[in-house]
Amino acid sequence: MLVLVGLGLASEKDLTIQGIEALNACTEVYLEAYTGSAPDLDIQKLERTIGKTVALLGRGEVESTLLIELAKKKRVGLIVVGDPLCATTHEDLQLEARAAKIGVRVIHNASILSAIGEVGLQMYKFGKTISIPFWQDTFKPTSFLDILEQNRSIDAHTLVLLDLDVAKNTFMQVSEALERLLLDKRVTHKTKIVVVSRLGSAHQKIVYAPISVLMKKRFIGPNALIIPGTLHFREEESLEAWA
Amino acid sequence: MLVLVGLGLASEKDLTIQGIEALNACTEVYLEAYTGSAPDLDIQKLERTIGKTVALLGRGEVESTLLIELAKKKRVGLIVVGDPLCATTHEDLQLEARAAKIGVRVIHNASILSAIGEVGLQMYKFGKTISIPFWQDTFKPTSFLDILEQNRSIDAHTLVLLDLDVAKNTFMQVSEALERLLLDKRVTHKTKIVVVSRLGSAHQKIVYAPISVLMKKRFIGPNALIIPGTLHFREEESLEAWA
Repeated sequence: MLVLVGLGLASEKDLTIQGIEALNACTEVYLEAYTGSAPDLDIQKLERTIGKTVALLGRGEVESTLLIELAKKKRVGLIVVGDPLCATTHEDLQLEARAAKIGVRVIHNASILSAIGEVGLQMYKFGKTISIPFWQDTFKPTSFLDILEQNRSIDAHTLVLLDLDVAKNTFMQVSEALERLLLDKRVTHKTKIVVVSRLGSAHQKIVYAPISVLMKKRFIGPNALIIPGTLHFREEESLEAWA
Repeated sequence: MLVLVGLGLASEKDLTIQGIEALNACTEVYLEAYTGSAPDLDIQKLERTIGKTVALLGRGEVESTLLIELAKKKRVGLIVVGDPLCATTHEDLQLEARAAKIGVRVIHNASILSAIGEVGLQMYKFGKTISIPFWQDTFKPTSFLDILEQNRSIDAHTLVLLDLDVAKNTFMQVSEALERLLLDKRVTHKTKIVVVSRLGSAHQKIVYAPISVLMKKRFIGPNALIIPGTLHFREEESLEAWA
């Protein structure tokens, strides 16, 4: 049995009662630590909360057959930051478990995909979500710009997730992401966008300003951006609170 | 002080530790009972969980100045099904509180907007969200069809939320929503879509089938639909599990 439990946005206090009970009933508990990062998480407090020791799993281990093999014999819990099935990694894990005739239980929690409503933009006006990956020497993808153009064609807001390397405790800097966005001909230094830092944590920060201003600010990750479409006056009013 | 607490999808067991502590610290606690419905919620268990009595609020009360007036003097908690700021009602409430210089705290939780990942479609490929409202004798809106066409133009998946009348404990029937969708020239009885019933509850049900088949099935609400865009083979594989 494989139990996928959403941790929510920031800390062990974001676990649900259902999540805590489900993890407590597992034989072994792992924390997936590469698709997301909870800024206020304290592993020892997490262990006390669920009454189990928690082992961290990196990318290689999550994408190996480790969890599936364990789940054939034991009740294995995997804690995932956010809501468990928002990343393709965990979708794949669910498919593999099913193929191996292993039962899967999912316990949902808050995700940036809905919590972003906190900035005051209407959720039903968001289009496709963009991820900006770290550029490598030989791989400098720009396909996220095509998605931005698609969203613009239907006047949708765009949520932009920035890459992270949890193993190295490194988040893409906001300035780096802004530089990538400026590759889009219709984005300029005057374009006003929203930066959301450490959403749902004690140190949450939201800023709405032109890119030229945002470039000069320091943000501590994890960060996300929103490129708004046309604003309803209520949305405009909400965003001005973060100006 | 106004504290907006997400209940999550289905029952009082979906509350987070943070949510329970914040509600326990409130002078008065209300449950907003018209924008959403938690299928497994037991109000008495909820009251025991948070150590407070809970009063239900209908639409008229939430949209009146009641909460704002109370929050000027007391610490008022409002429990909202799902994630608190996904409905414009609560965005407006947040704006009014700010205008009245009342502090607002938001505690996030699972929402259908991210939990829908459970069906196995990639979350970043969803476009704008559609709501189908009940038709009245004199008001038969079809603007949701325009949004569907927009999402189709960028090959996005579309999440369709169905209207509900919590006061009357009435959910729009899936068959009624399907009839509305058939008004779209590019939707036919052969079009395969996904129905999701009572997501996150003990009686969750997911079905992927042509509209002609779905028309004959009975679903107990709350229900949502997904009209998929072009499927990646992994997504196809996931959906076939619900066929």
